[in-house]
Amino acid sequence: MTDLARAFVPGHVTGFFTVEEHDDPTKAGSRGAGIVLSEGATVTVRPADEQRLRLNGDPVSMGPVERVLGTLEATAEVQIVTDLPIGAGFGVSGAASLGTALAANAVFDRRLSENELSTIAHGAEVQAGTGLGDVVAQARGGVPIRLEPGGPQDNLIDAIPARGRIEYCVFGEIDTAAVVGEETEAIDAAGERALSAVVAEPTVDRFMQASRQFARESGLVTDRVRETVEAVAEAGGTATMAMLGETVVAVGTGLSDAGYDPTVCEISPSGARLERL
Amino acid sequence: MTDLARAFVPGHVTGFFTVEEHDDPTKAGSRGAGIVLSEGATVTVRPADEQRLRLNGDPVSMGPVERVLGTLEATAEVQIVTDLPIGAGFGVSGAASLGTALAANAVFDRRLSENELSTIAHGAEVQAGTGLGDVVAQARGGVPIRLEPGGPQDNLIDAIPARGRIEYCVFGEIDTAAVVGEETEAIDAAGERALSAVVAEPTVDRFMQASRQFARESGLVTDRVRETVEAVAEAGGTATMAMLGETVVAVGTGLSDAGYDPTVCEISPSGARLERL
Repeated sequence: MTDLARAFVPGHVTGFFTVEEHDDPTKAGSRGAGIVLSEGATVTVRPADEQRLRLNGDPVSMGPVERVLGTLEATAEVQIVTDLPIGAGFGVSGAASLGTALAANAVFDRRLSENELSTIAHGAEVQAGTGLGDVVAQARGGVPIRLEPGGPQDNLIDAIPARGRIEYCVFGEIDTAAVVGEETEAIDAAGERALSAVVAEPTVDRFMQASRQFARESGLVTDRVRETVEAVAEAGGTATMAMLGETVVAVGTGLSDAGYDPTVCEISPSGARLERL
Repeated sequence: MTDLARAFVPGHVTGFFTVEEHDDPTKAGSRGAGIVLSEGATVTVRPADEQRLRLNGDPVSMGPVERVLGTLEATAEVQIVTDLPIGAGFGVSGAASLGTALAANAVFDRRLSENELSTIAHGAEVQAGTGLGDVVAQARGGVPIRLEPGGPQDNLIDAIPARGRIEYCVFGEIDTAAVVGEETEAIDAAGERALSAVVAEPTVDRFMQASRQFARESGLVTDRVRETVEAVAEAGGTATMAMLGETVVAVGTGLSDAGYDPTVCEISPSGARLERL
């Protein structure tokens, strides 16, 4: 057992997805595609007398993180620090869960593999209803295409080879659990069409186009997001909605060119990783 | 078509492996485990009137790179720049092949996915006899455990979650094609034992121990390598042989502590990636 360990997990914005149910949470989840971001969450784990979670310094309760600690039989203080918006479609709960799994495995010498740790974090997210596909995407990096649902033992993941600048604007939050817990027939049908399109032509342009179509067909797009995506298109750029948040994501300088004041980051070629201390 | 594209592919040292034959080169390859290094090769691809390959500025012929260009129907000038030793077990041919695939796909707008590009590079390596498992490891990063042979469509890959300093000393070259083209029964049996040990306990310590045992049991260890590995152990460190080169790799400061003057790098958490230009 060491004094502490730290992991960095990149954020992930989902362009489109399906909801795939299964009795085993490590096989449930979603198919879809998204972009892994250079911005993310840093998670520090220390052994402690009782579970203590802090998010950007404030005490917090996070169901999937607590579940990960329980699975690893780790009583710990977990500090999560992130500049990403919370509840706005950036996979912060997935980052917190996966980062906790990686760091707790190191601190408590649990000797699990990367896939085992991703499976634990993915299953915890599915059971908490906080995410369906962020963890496996965040473990990989880049622009992942999730061809099958579930943890890394079950899914088949591919990716669009791409680098570049990403911009985003957040207008509000959407509760993931409320959306994926309801009837998802329209979402699933739209998600499958989008996935087919991106598999046929794995480029960022096609991904953005398929994501915009998914946002419309699934009924998830809000007025504010639609107006912003249209404004970016009128300025000659390309943008879409981050699932699930009232958030617009653009490639290159799309939001800046349309007169918005976005946060700027880039596609992260790397996935989740332990930090060297 | 753009003017040029550039990819960085990290080096990879193999600790142990099996040789898995198959009529389809995208399904042939090896199982095993290794370490992906922060040092690697940068590959720049430009459209040209005829194929031209340069390695650190000098004209060169590289079978797997030419095969990748042929598969992508790309007539190009390819510049490979690396500080890694050639022919000494660092996966330079795999890095050149995968980097060429990623960069040529971008320059010639071939619209292939990361897995498809890795499959092309892996198959080219297998057909040239220059490598069996480097490409899929280099695509992932970290400390990959290759549970199945073949390209990413067929294999199942896991990894040891680890970061840290790596040191290496090179004493000479070994011809991969000569070793894997011969009878490999002893290698395969030793490789399977090592893989079982690391799957049971995916830690760097166990990986180094299993790799040393593989080097002995496979008969691949040379006198010079054995003496060096023993010297590191006497100084309290841990080292093993890089497959296939007359090369010793140590974790932490193992070679320095034993009085050697090693090259220093670290475990790369990232795999192959396009560079932003």
